[in-house]
Amino acid sequence: MFFETLLLATGNRGKYEEFRAMLPDSFVGRLLFAPEVGALVVDETGDTYAVNAMLKARAWARASGLPSLADDSGLEVAALEWGPGVRSARIVEGTDEDRNRWLLGGMAGRKDRRARFVAALALSIPGAWTLVCEGDCPGRLAEHPSGEGGFGYDPLFLPDGFDVSFAALPAAVKNAISHRAAALRVLQELLSCEGSSGDSPHAVDV
Amino acid sequence: MFFETLLLATGNRGKYEEFRAMLPDSFVGRLLFAPEVGALVVDETGDTYAVNAMLKARAWARASGLPSLADDSGLEVAALEWGPGVRSARIVEGTDEDRNRWLLGGMAGRKDRRARFVAALALSIPGAWTLVCEGDCPGRLAEHPSGEGGFGYDPLFLPDGFDVSFAALPAAVKNAISHRAAALRVLQELLSCEGSSGDSPHAVDV
Repeated sequence: MFFETLLLATGNRGKYEEFRAMLPDSFVGRLLFAPEVGALVVDETGDTYAVNAMLKARAWARASGLPSLADDSGLEVAALEWGPGVRSARIVEGTDEDRNRWLLGGMAGRKDRRARFVAALALSIPGAWTLVCEGDCPGRLAEHPSGEGGFGYDPLFLPDGFDVSFAALPAAVKNAISHRAAALRVLQELLSCEGSSGDSPHAVDV
Repeated sequence: MFFETLLLATGNRGKYEEFRAMLPDSFVGRLLFAPEVGALVVDETGDTYAVNAMLKARAWARASGLPSLADDSGLEVAALEWGPGVRSARIVEGTDEDRNRWLLGGMAGRKDRRARFVAALALSIPGAWTLVCEGDCPGRLAEHPSGEGGFGYDPLFLPDGFDVSFAALPAAVKNAISHRAAALRVLQELLSCEGSSGDSPHAVDV
């Protein structure tokens, strides 16, 4: 399936740039940045990434008449009872730096630094269907922020297999291993009709 | 795509029987009725059919490990400001007959009897993806209930093109024209990779 035009339902420029780099030309022609299309406030009232991603994608699809892709994602930290999770972007008012400071404060003295990024992507076709996929990326938290790339908690997140943060990795590396990349693979597999039906042993493709 | 086993995430026997009749053998081998698999209470906290269908499908998929299909549907009545909608099954405590009496009471003296049934279906593959599709069936409300088939508000709903209620139509006819049938067609088209990407002029299949 190919989309001539796809709206990315986010006001986060970092997310937009990331998706622009990740989405292959064979899948999307032109990727629109939501604030350049219009103004729309979507209440993210869901308790899960999946519901919030769907709310955003459907609201933008309905308002614009365009196929719309939304992401809802968060950081889950073992020592913080796997929070802040779905509230990651809203747990502290302010900037990404403020939230990274809050996170380091909460981790002071903690030995268990396991963490994972989780993302849900929702692709909504106006009046037709919405597809929601999830992905994650396991890792651990650094003692100090590092790197200039990415956004959000990226400067503190060391993905498994690497000793540098998401923010310090080349974008192409992050975009190959990230939670968003994992979710996007499931979405593309399903839409490309390559026969994937997920990991379920109960689903068989014919 | 073919599912050897699919769980229908509903406690409503009428809905189960309807889906069993509608789902072709080429799509589903065995359709399980949720109460025969386990007990699970899902809070339908969404404001839309789509969110509620997704909440039910995902909760059952996660709990059972099985691909799960959920429906959330409602009746929208022009003279009742297009309600009761997403609250159709909960607007009055009691039986279907109680709710049909409530509806007739609310319609007393109303000339505009336009109504439509709307359904969202959510198909969730554990740990992989959830697909949500919607469909509707336009019609009008009868002055009196009739028919023995179907469930819910079926005895009062006269689908466009017919002078008898959903409850009085042969099941095969209802199942060809219903809101659930419309939603199921979109879902099957997408999963059969027949090239449908909905009605959007912006999506082109390759």
